[in-house]
Amino acid sequence: MKTYSMNQLERYPIYLKYFKELRDEGVEVVSSPRIAAKLGYSEEQVRKDLQNVSLEPGRPKKGRSVAQLIEDLETFLGYREQTVAVVLGVGHLGSALLNFPAFSEMGLSLQAGFDTDPAKIGTNVGGKPVYPMSRLGEVMQEIGASIAILTVPSALAQEAAVLATLGGAKAIWNFAPAQLEMPEGIIVENVNLASSLAVLTHRMSLAKDKGNR
Amino acid sequence: MKTYSMNQLERYPIYLKYFKELRDEGVEVVSSPRIAAKLGYSEEQVRKDLQNVSLEPGRPKKGRSVAQLIEDLETFLGYREQTVAVVLGVGHLGSALLNFPAFSEMGLSLQAGFDTDPAKIGTNVGGKPVYPMSRLGEVMQEIGASIAILTVPSALAQEAAVLATLGGAKAIWNFAPAQLEMPEGIIVENVNLASSLAVLTHRMSLAKDKGNR
Repeated sequence: MKTYSMNQLERYPIYLKYFKELRDEGVEVVSSPRIAAKLGYSEEQVRKDLQNVSLEPGRPKKGRSVAQLIEDLETFLGYREQTVAVVLGVGHLGSALLNFPAFSEMGLSLQAGFDTDPAKIGTNVGGKPVYPMSRLGEVMQEIGASIAILTVPSALAQEAAVLATLGGAKAIWNFAPAQLEMPEGIIVENVNLASSLAVLTHRMSLAKDKGNR
Repeated sequence: MKTYSMNQLERYPIYLKYFKELRDEGVEVVSSPRIAAKLGYSEEQVRKDLQNVSLEPGRPKKGRSVAQLIEDLETFLGYREQTVAVVLGVGHLGSALLNFPAFSEMGLSLQAGFDTDPAKIGTNVGGKPVYPMSRLGEVMQEIGASIAILTVPSALAQEAAVLATLGGAKAIWNFAPAQLEMPEGIIVENVNLASSLAVLTHRMSLAKDKGNR
């Protein structure tokens, strides 16, 4: 089985988005140099990335079929199947995710939210029902959810994640700023805004130092 | 000047969060092995990461002062100064960010939102006023904003980012799934949920293959 670096996996949705733009503009064939120039990657990297997901070899000087690339990437990324997911914690961020229309294009079918706040339970957010946290396991099994999206406060994150695995979650997409300790075999993918901001701030301070020199 | 890898920068807020938890539990001194075990990093990496931001050397067998580590990390991460930021696009995600209380602890002072929707202009979101996009440059200069947080639809992202730099933005924190082309010297940090999801999905498919073997 091929292996993929995390950076490489992160690039694939960016390629896909660009190829869809090309398709919408009526472009049928695209070359590695053109992709590299547009996305700011090296030509070498583009060739390697695309070879890793595409069955069709690129034709030198001619380029690759945009439609084929889209199909290969969508298949590779799992966008052509739907995985059922639930959102734990229907606060501002949880509501934003439940309202995010693009997830279904990415193969993610968000079907329910869960919260402990009686004012939220029984409402609809983004067209999805909000259930009490106490019904998590039962509802997850009923709808066959395998991904739990965690947007609870960090102090509640560990407990909510454990409840989700008891309900059948195979993966936790964790937006809470907490380090989760999960049993082996449960996948945790963190989205840490503080980490992203740390990189931004540090690059700003480097730029400032450079300007002052 | 010391250099820091992106992965290293991303770890610092995670260290800081843990040290604050230790402080709140009354722990005054912490050793690298304990930190490594808790956060799942190697001891070697913990030592290297902390040496890079702390003036005080760790004392072998004794460990480091938790209070000093917190001070060093907060200073390094810029959490002890406030940088003024604005949010472009007050949809679900923009509203969630304007309502996120932890940003001020991270040195980010969110002071205004901007949108083109007349129904949103003039309202308050998370206690911050929402202005029309046409007033972006003027308001940014008035409040001294140097960071623009981009939560507009991807088709509008490039234009909004350009307007923000005209208003004085030195950095764009980009939540729109779009590749921005910015003049040299403008920092762009992307938060790409599709990329994070791609990593999650791929790790799930690997785990499934392993389970089937």
